[in-house]
Amino acid sequence: MSLKWISLLLLLQLNCYFSSGSCRKVLVWPVEYSHWINMKTILDELVMRGHEVTVLISSASIFIDPNTQSSIKFEIFPTFLTKDDFKYIFKHLLDKWTYLAKDSFWTYFSTVQSIVWEYSDIVMTSCKDLVSNKKLMTKLHESRFDIVLADAVGPCGELLADILQIPLVYSLRFSPGFSLEKYGGKLPLPPSYVPVIMSELGDQMTFMERVKNMMYVLYFDFWFQTFNEKKWNQFYSEVLGRPTTLFETIGKADMWLIRNYWDFEFPHPLLPNFEFVGGLHCKPAKPLPMVLWRYHGKKPDTLGPNTRLYKWIPQNDLLGHPKTKAFITHGGANGIYEAIYHGIPMVGIPLFADQPDNIAHMMAKGAAVRLDFNKMSTTDLLNALKQVINNPSYKQNAMRLSTIQHDQPMKPLDRAVFWIEFVMRHKGAKHLRPAAHDLTWYQYHSLDVIGFLLACVAAALFVITKCCLFCCQKFPIAGKKEKRE
Amino acid sequence: MSLKWISLLLLLQLNCYFSSGSCRKVLVWPVEYSHWINMKTILDELVMRGHEVTVLISSASIFIDPNTQSSIKFEIFPTFLTKDDFKYIFKHLLDKWTYLAKDSFWTYFSTVQSIVWEYSDIVMTSCKDLVSNKKLMTKLHESRFDIVLADAVGPCGELLADILQIPLVYSLRFSPGFSLEKYGGKLPLPPSYVPVIMSELGDQMTFMERVKNMMYVLYFDFWFQTFNEKKWNQFYSEVLGRPTTLFETIGKADMWLIRNYWDFEFPHPLLPNFEFVGGLHCKPAKPLPMVLWRYHGKKPDTLGPNTRLYKWIPQNDLLGHPKTKAFITHGGANGIYEAIYHGIPMVGIPLFADQPDNIAHMMAKGAAVRLDFNKMSTTDLLNALKQVINNPSYKQNAMRLSTIQHDQPMKPLDRAVFWIEFVMRHKGAKHLRPAAHDLTWYQYHSLDVIGFLLACVAAALFVITKCCLFCCQKFPIAGKKEKRE
Repeated sequence: MSLKWISLLLLLQLNCYFSSGSCRKVLVWPVEYSHWINMKTILDELVMRGHEVTVLISSASIFIDPNTQSSIKFEIFPTFLTKDDFKYIFKHLLDKWTYLAKDSFWTYFSTVQSIVWEYSDIVMTSCKDLVSNKKLMTKLHESRFDIVLADAVGPCGELLADILQIPLVYSLRFSPGFSLEKYGGKLPLPPSYVPVIMSELGDQMTFMERVKNMMYVLYFDFWFQTFNEKKWNQFYSEVLGRPTTLFETIGKADMWLIRNYWDFEFPHPLLPNFEFVGGLHCKPAKPLPMVLWRYHGKKPDTLGPNTRLYKWIPQNDLLGHPKTKAFITHGGANGIYEAIYHGIPMVGIPLFADQPDNIAHMMAKGAAVRLDFNKMSTTDLLNALKQVINNPSYKQNAMRLSTIQHDQPMKPLDRAVFWIEFVMRHKGAKHLRPAAHDLTWYQYHSLDVIGFLLACVAAALFVITKCCLFCCQKFPIAGKKEKRE
Repeated sequence: MSLKWISLLLLLQLNCYFSSGSCRKVLVWPVEYSHWINMKTILDELVMRGHEVTVLISSASIFIDPNTQSSIKFEIFPTFLTKDDFKYIFKHLLDKWTYLAKDSFWTYFSTVQSIVWEYSDIVMTSCKDLVSNKKLMTKLHESRFDIVLADAVGPCGELLADILQIPLVYSLRFSPGFSLEKYGGKLPLPPSYVPVIMSELGDQMTFMERVKNMMYVLYFDFWFQTFNEKKWNQFYSEVLGRPTTLFETIGKADMWLIRNYWDFEFPHPLLPNFEFVGGLHCKPAKPLPMVLWRYHGKKPDTLGPNTRLYKWIPQNDLLGHPKTKAFITHGGANGIYEAIYHGIPMVGIPLFADQPDNIAHMMAKGAAVRLDFNKMSTTDLLNALKQVINNPSYKQNAMRLSTIQHDQPMKPLDRAVFWIEFVMRHKGAKHLRPAAHDLTWYQYHSLDVIGFLLACVAAALFVITKCCLFCCQKFPIAGKKEKRE
């Protein structure tokens, strides 16, 4: 072993020694694609600080490649889907959402619901394959992990934490209609000034926009379900051997690390166990040689000499290049955060999920122009680019957001890792958990108290009225009697 | 000038250079007594980082002594009250509150209201004397301050910031019924699990306690006023030359630094521009020689040989002494934070203001026993002391709170100073300000939207009913006709 490696290992040990007193064991329930990119940044930092990180993936996992992650352990459990099945289903679902017209509210959201339910079914299959794998579950029990770190949009992490009786920390960008945050985490989000996610509204709403937001909230609260809750409730109750629900199990999370910050999100209430860590994956750019273009297919004949094609380029480094003028993006949260970090104005062509909303936020903050993927022409794209490049307000606003992102008391990644380590050190963070979790929905909204007080008022009014009537009946007669006497 | 002093000055300059790029000018509107102790910790740190701090005090100020604060500038403006008047009024008000029996809710709170209104009148007099002092106001204008830092319970800071057109940061422990936080800051505090301050309730409430909390909330919202708002609204409107209110002016604050943390407070929602910085004045204890007793009068004959009397002792150092077993306290927030910091269980004998509530919080967290100042006997005190010393749970709970206080991502004082410097650097923090400030109370609660939607539903039902009736009237006849034909 070379001296360099010995020094590095020593450094890792020292890091662990200084950061938390002792190194701990982290069990991870991840979500594929861009979610994994973000989660991996946290995991790499945890490994850097000397913790032992174990990631659970199914044998059908496609994006999370154990072979490229030498410092992270993987537990691969068998599932009946093949990698090709999984890839095909995912592509099919994302394509369906991307080409879905938003002309009709009901058609759009009922299709979105069917898409997320299909996704939810795949996750449930994986989860069942995991928890019914007795050998692996025994191994996990015996490994005595300190924490489960889970991406909240792929349920199962909370079930694992409950089975293993260890604390739980979530990483989350959003859930449709904020259902997980509201009903799992008890986050209060007043519909009057907090535009619900997927509504594409800003926080400065007109009366009719507030009406629209309220209808979205009602729709998400009473109709749209991110997950087929009935199925999940039944599954969790069976596994845990007691009647429970998905949201009750989710509500046990010690900390929610939300991949968002106030440069991206509109100001709204938070709870003590919600921490905003948006942009934790962003870092200063490494130098690039020239302008670049990532492209797979045959080189188009019309391509100008100032455009070069590459099969893959590091997006963060490109956005951080001093000559980068604008960012054409599908509006994924990771990419938007890289653009914010480097202060680059955007042309957004959102496809699905939170992407339309993300671009709407950037538009409201004056840092982006939006195009419709299903309707745009080349002229639209050219005009949009000209607009964000030539109108200085877009650059100014992007730079303002960049300043907000950089000027924080603590870097988002450090904050995320601090809270994960805190939960491990103290075996939870009960002092941050609001008592709202112990209330039913009608208790939470004080409906029982209001009902009781109204009943008291009604009873008092009834008694007073009766007394008055009684007095009116008695005393006039007494008066008359007196007169007669 | 000695080398030591030159080094110190150089260090101050370098501190400023590293912390914020350039040093800035802070204008302070303080509140007397314990509030000043806390504020001064922040000011000393700001001075240490090379900022120029100017404190506004009236000529009647008693506790804030310019002669002992060499590094802070003072602007003393004349007021018609003398120091003796001021001292007498304050003592009279605090005595009145201390000996006020809480047997009757209405008598208690109407007296408390009269006390805070009397206090409010004194503050208003000072404020009028300040803003009508043309010479001083011109000087303040010309001094081009970067920020007003104000204790929110003594209004005037927000008026100053508005007149000088500069950002505003508040320091605040609490306002009665959370009125400033709720109506000035738009902080949502659901009555179902957030016990209102001065109710002495915990966050794990029974049904009847939730009823009690709701009644307190209704009382504070509709009856009790921290300040005589009508007077203040009129005063602010006159000075600013436009119709405005106290709460509207307060609502312009860029940041609220709340002297609280989750070891002391029960978890509840926060807003992005609310930062908890409780215990920022706490610091490691310096060594003490032996057990001590602070006492002014004649030495009692019955005093044991193991008790020594001193005229003044540093409370923080005493609480941090390894032999300190318990803390007998009136329950002021500063003292409680020092006890939490050093992990010392408490015997609380609350007198007035938030003190009964503070002790109630410490009792709910298992770190204190409470005695009634107006009813306690020497035996009660002895028993209470025995209880917190001999029952290990009190020490364990106090140590748990201490761990929470120490194990934060950033020290409270650093966090407080970070946000003050942030607001100065960026001339505000608009990105943290919720859009709730732009809504009326009925818009905030979505009452207009709910009304509109109900009207739509009613109209739809009316049309459908009319259609049905029309159909019933028409088609049976048509059916009969058909039958006949």
